[in-house]
Amino acid sequence: EHLSNLSAGAVDKGEYRHFMIKEIFDQPTALANTLEGRINGGRVLEACLGPRAAELLARVKRVRLVACGTSAHAGLVAQYWIEQIAKLPCRIELASEFRYRDPVIEPDTLFISISQSGETADTLEALRHAKTKQLAASLVICNAPESSLVRESDIALMTHAGPERSVASTKAFTTQLMALALVMLLLARRNGLSEDQERRYVKSLEAAARQVDEVLKEDAVLQRLAERLIAKEHALFLGRGPMWPVAMEGALKLKEISYIHAEAYAAGELKHGPLALVDEHMPVIAVAPDGHLLEKVKSNLQEVKARGGELYVFADREAGFKSEPGVTVIGMPHADELTDPIVYTVPLQLLAYHVAVLKGTDVDQPRNLAKSVTVE
Amino acid sequence: EHLSNLSAGAVDKGEYRHFMIKEIFDQPTALANTLEGRINGGRVLEACLGPRAAELLARVKRVRLVACGTSAHAGLVAQYWIEQIAKLPCRIELASEFRYRDPVIEPDTLFISISQSGETADTLEALRHAKTKQLAASLVICNAPESSLVRESDIALMTHAGPERSVASTKAFTTQLMALALVMLLLARRNGLSEDQERRYVKSLEAAARQVDEVLKEDAVLQRLAERLIAKEHALFLGRGPMWPVAMEGALKLKEISYIHAEAYAAGELKHGPLALVDEHMPVIAVAPDGHLLEKVKSNLQEVKARGGELYVFADREAGFKSEPGVTVIGMPHADELTDPIVYTVPLQLLAYHVAVLKGTDVDQPRNLAKSVTVE
Repeated sequence: EHLSNLSAGAVDKGEYRHFMIKEIFDQPTALANTLEGRINGGRVLEACLGPRAAELLARVKRVRLVACGTSAHAGLVAQYWIEQIAKLPCRIELASEFRYRDPVIEPDTLFISISQSGETADTLEALRHAKTKQLAASLVICNAPESSLVRESDIALMTHAGPERSVASTKAFTTQLMALALVMLLLARRNGLSEDQERRYVKSLEAAARQVDEVLKEDAVLQRLAERLIAKEHALFLGRGPMWPVAMEGALKLKEISYIHAEAYAAGELKHGPLALVDEHMPVIAVAPDGHLLEKVKSNLQEVKARGGELYVFADREAGFKSEPGVTVIGMPHADELTDPIVYTVPLQLLAYHVAVLKGTDVDQPRNLAKSVTVE
Repeated sequence: EHLSNLSAGAVDKGEYRHFMIKEIFDQPTALANTLEGRINGGRVLEACLGPRAAELLARVKRVRLVACGTSAHAGLVAQYWIEQIAKLPCRIELASEFRYRDPVIEPDTLFISISQSGETADTLEALRHAKTKQLAASLVICNAPESSLVRESDIALMTHAGPERSVASTKAFTTQLMALALVMLLLARRNGLSEDQERRYVKSLEAAARQVDEVLKEDAVLQRLAERLIAKEHALFLGRGPMWPVAMEGALKLKEISYIHAEAYAAGELKHGPLALVDEHMPVIAVAPDGHLLEKVKSNLQEVKARGGELYVFADREAGFKSEPGVTVIGMPHADELTDPIVYTVPLQLLAYHVAVLKGTDVDQPRNLAKSVTVE
């Protein structure tokens, strides 16, 4: 599905050179819009899931998520959140895998699909496949109100990202995270989360737009970092917990538009193989807000220093980590653990964008990729 | 933990140039040994899980798996098997992720850890973490009888692979798959698998050693294929369902010893990003026994033909797929769906080995990697 499906003229790039950079800078507004009308008195409004929300959510004892590509990264973050905060068993799966097997779906499952367009073929088929089982409810996180996934789900929670024209998804991803956080809090509230805790999480969601805005002000820092990466053909992204899918998303952006072979690993897996590849041609980029990974990754990389291995770490500015030879620390605004995945995605989007621009690729329409994969 | 920890002289390479190639060729024997004494009258002997097996298995309603690296790939195959055949909900997780969060473990869970050495630090800590929850039982798949994981688990099922000296794991992996298949069948039998079906699966497990032997006879084919890959810096491995982790394992071998940046993707994800990277520098290698993927991947790659994209497909010889310009089909012996992951891993091991030899790397002791990761 190409751009022709969007009404031409509905969106323009304005002052921006590409849709992608416009959409990256749209994020503070898109995040605020996705929260708007869904918070009241510091708490999440259950009504944002529609009139049947209370009845349907009351049945939920476990959660399954399906999605493809970038949306699957959002679902993987949500999987961590839902187990950690809502204390419900949760599993994410790629839609293309789920639809072609006979998955065991336990009773009282909330089935969540995630798709920007609402027309992703594998995700739609996965939903139809899941509906042949007994579900507590089906819920879609989507950016297109008239789409097939919205029509065929019991509940739809729309991301208010506005039209996304760049093939490489940016604001759709971060607003998916925002919407998933709302769903998670509604589940958590029914499973032991106190009112106080909910208010704290809501505050941090409300702060995310401002923190993203702060990151956007550091655009020049990412541009300089991009200059150090354009000559590379490889990159390794590392994260742990909900920051692992953020690393995946950073690697995917670099793949999609900069044609650098970037791959993400859960940080603990580094010594189980990929460390053999690290040298001056393969920089390591870690997203580690509180720096808990920093020392471990640094010690892992000691061995490759002789081969010129370089480490770039995105870490909380307040955590006090300093750059040193071979290790570049990029300071980030202090965010909450819940919103770190939203905030730390943004510099990785900027990084991929600037590398692509410097390399002269077709940023908004990378080779061989379509905006929505509506066929297999 | 380096080779010094193994008693020197206990194993030698015999006629082989490296431990790795010796251990690849050990596999028919190792697989047969792992079955030996565990099958009787065409059925799996429950006693192979020890005297408490019946009592413990009777409690199991769901399964969790944890492991690192290659062992995690075995666990991912088992996840597919356990849902497909034993019809129990199952989830695999990297040990390094599991241990650092507060996972929701539902009642009646069989917790399976997988580790060649039985001393993998993250896996051991994951087991200890899981034991703080209420488990139906803990079970380890392991190659070292005196190890910590064996001591600390309720049940141990040993892989009889014999000592593995090459850092890149080969026979440990395929025997882990064999052991996991036995556990899966014992679970399946208690959950609706008929005696006839069990016998059919057992037959296919018994045939695996012979099929692996057939693959090993094709060593020269893989050697010639290796010559076409040595100049590459990248490779993309594709698979679907239980063959996706086989693709992961193939990519990991190439990374570990050949220093080629190989990455695996679930085949359905190709159009969600990695397709942008495919060109003459990044061959695509698919493991697709029945060729169900072949047409899809071929149509996906049409677009990159102009950029010189090359596809190599490992497919069942009997499926009748023919090579054509840009597409090389490597015929494999006909195996059962259950044993395909075992059989199709072997040519990928040989491929990585021959690339490494041609490149002149230190095959048995790749840079920066240790045999067992006993520290974080």
